[in-house]
Amino acid sequence: MISVAEALEAVLALGAPLDIEEVDLAEADGRILAQDVQANRDQPPFAASAMDGYAVPSTDIKPGDTFKVIGEAAAGHRFDRSVSAGEAVRIFTGAPLPDGAHRVVIQEDTTREGDVITLTDPLDSGHHIRPAGGDFKRGDKMESPRLLSPADIALLASMNIARVPVRRRPVVAIIATGDELVSVGETPRDDQIIASNSLGLAAMFRRAGAETRVLPIAKDTVSSLEMALTLSEGADLLVTIGGASVGDYDIVAEVASGVGLEREFYKVAMRPGKPLMAGRIGDRAMVGLPGNPVSSMVCGEIFILPLLSKFLGMPSGPRARIEMPLQGALSKNGPREHYMRGVITNGAVSVARRQDSSLLTVLAQANALVVRPPHAPACDSGDVVEVIPL
Amino acid sequence: MISVAEALEAVLALGAPLDIEEVDLAEADGRILAQDVQANRDQPPFAASAMDGYAVPSTDIKPGDTFKVIGEAAAGHRFDRSVSAGEAVRIFTGAPLPDGAHRVVIQEDTTREGDVITLTDPLDSGHHIRPAGGDFKRGDKMESPRLLSPADIALLASMNIARVPVRRRPVVAIIATGDELVSVGETPRDDQIIASNSLGLAAMFRRAGAETRVLPIAKDTVSSLEMALTLSEGADLLVTIGGASVGDYDIVAEVASGVGLEREFYKVAMRPGKPLMAGRIGDRAMVGLPGNPVSSMVCGEIFILPLLSKFLGMPSGPRARIEMPLQGALSKNGPREHYMRGVITNGAVSVARRQDSSLLTVLAQANALVVRPPHAPACDSGDVVEVIPL
Repeated sequence: MISVAEALEAVLALGAPLDIEEVDLAEADGRILAQDVQANRDQPPFAASAMDGYAVPSTDIKPGDTFKVIGEAAAGHRFDRSVSAGEAVRIFTGAPLPDGAHRVVIQEDTTREGDVITLTDPLDSGHHIRPAGGDFKRGDKMESPRLLSPADIALLASMNIARVPVRRRPVVAIIATGDELVSVGETPRDDQIIASNSLGLAAMFRRAGAETRVLPIAKDTVSSLEMALTLSEGADLLVTIGGASVGDYDIVAEVASGVGLEREFYKVAMRPGKPLMAGRIGDRAMVGLPGNPVSSMVCGEIFILPLLSKFLGMPSGPRARIEMPLQGALSKNGPREHYMRGVITNGAVSVARRQDSSLLTVLAQANALVVRPPHAPACDSGDVVEVIPL
Repeated sequence: MISVAEALEAVLALGAPLDIEEVDLAEADGRILAQDVQANRDQPPFAASAMDGYAVPSTDIKPGDTFKVIGEAAAGHRFDRSVSAGEAVRIFTGAPLPDGAHRVVIQEDTTREGDVITLTDPLDSGHHIRPAGGDFKRGDKMESPRLLSPADIALLASMNIARVPVRRRPVVAIIATGDELVSVGETPRDDQIIASNSLGLAAMFRRAGAETRVLPIAKDTVSSLEMALTLSEGADLLVTIGGASVGDYDIVAEVASGVGLEREFYKVAMRPGKPLMAGRIGDRAMVGLPGNPVSSMVCGEIFILPLLSKFLGMPSGPRARIEMPLQGALSKNGPREHYMRGVITNGAVSVARRQDSSLLTVLAQANALVVRPPHAPACDSGDVVEVIPL
């Protein structure tokens, strides 16, 4: 058995950043920017008014000063002459500042009679001008790699980037294996259960930016597994669930070896998740997850999400951990690194009483994994532990 | 001007939980469970082995005891006779426990010769049996409303819920208005800019569970706005951007009134975001956002996301705030509640130096809004402030 850190390193070595594709900006939210992009323009492209008011030619003004209003500038409608001494232009937020204007007086600081305005007392001291290029300048970059947010989409739009270079989504084929499994909606025999992990993992991987293909359940037979492996061709990553200990042998490894699996490791010093396997079949990375529902979901979080980050060209390494006080005590840990299901509330984490790897109800209520190193001593309430928020 | 709290209350009053629809479980991740669902079965449906080993009829065993192996039970393959005194059944993880068996001895604690096993010393004390219904029992509920997670999807699968009752996604029509705007990818005149908020807001609303329709940009003319309003028919929510102060009048309000707008309020004591408007046109809720890019995105976070929660039948109220020490000082606040763009690092929040509502570069780097109440006094570094994480 290897350590979790060694296993993660081996899993990450199976992936490399995928190709770059271009998508419409409207489809780019949540994608990974794969190349730096440069603004095609200054923003604002012109000095603009930040308020509704009057653009005047001098910055040296005082209450009582009067100006003759010679025109109007609105957003999208430039006033195309100059403003000279004693003149003002009615101006609205976002409008280009007319030539010759150096300050905007907000409308609340003026009185107007006909086409003459008089400045009132007190006078706001701001100039209320947004300089050209004040947000960004032509050539300014958004740097890659970057997970694009809604605010990034707005910024890219204002940079006039209509097509965005992003990483292709990794395609993940998922195969649940086992004679005990039927698909949701079917009627199981009394010694069967519903395949649950494949749909849960598919949702987890899609949230991380993958495209998923949930393949039909494979029975514990060579022909059924061979068929499933064939269906996974073209995927970047094949994830199998279960099948590592069927009766006395590992049928997934046997069949996968027959189609060229080069196995990197089998078994990790981890709870839950000991029977984890990873390797490569031709161009595909392959990770064999344990069949216990919670084990497979936890291994998905710990190993597959970092691998998907690698495919997407993002920094990839162990899941970020935070330190947090423990609520309740914990007994000492055994030789395997333990990822305990827990709940964070009010800045402290409590560990679920029942940690059996079959309990999906416990996982669904959890929002954190408490990481216990191999042979960690017992902990008291209030001790600081390492936590991976889910 | 009304307060932010009053404005939010008025905005929330515009929405009500939408209809319930059923979707396939494979499509349910991220949707809102709209009715309690009940497990159709026990999980596990039978007492099952938690380990690979041997099922024996007695719990009172000791090193040196021997048993005759009379058969095998694997996942999906029940051993369909009983185990009697002196007998054992080879059993694998997840397999139904045979009748008469009361304990599983892990295989590492046995030696086997032919069909006889002998228990070794020391003997693990666990029984390694998962009781029937240990995860959940038939009739156990997942309670609504609930934002479904990948772990929930796995749990619903194991409950054999193939079709899931969820709230219909709210349909949000988005109209950017203004003669100064062109769509991304077009070439603006020198007094024009790119419409950025519509795409940014659409992404924000989709992440919150909405379906979005970004309508063509409306010019500041009655006919163009009327056309846009017509295109928004059938949406649950119409969001307009800008147009509340075009020249000296509010063209959006004027045109919307012509098609039946009942306005609830106009102007909120808020920075950024003062010219916010909300009301109802027939069946549609309508929110008029300010045209400044950052104002519209911040108002989307503060007002529209809670309204979407209401449409989705989730608890809806002000965005959750956390308390956090400030890094750097802040001057006193004016009469409007200020939502300052900031960055959380290492448990403290710093406020961006430039807070002008036109700066999308600042928003894109922010991960938090620092909320400053009206007339809040100056703050020193280390003072605790209220923060909305983005």
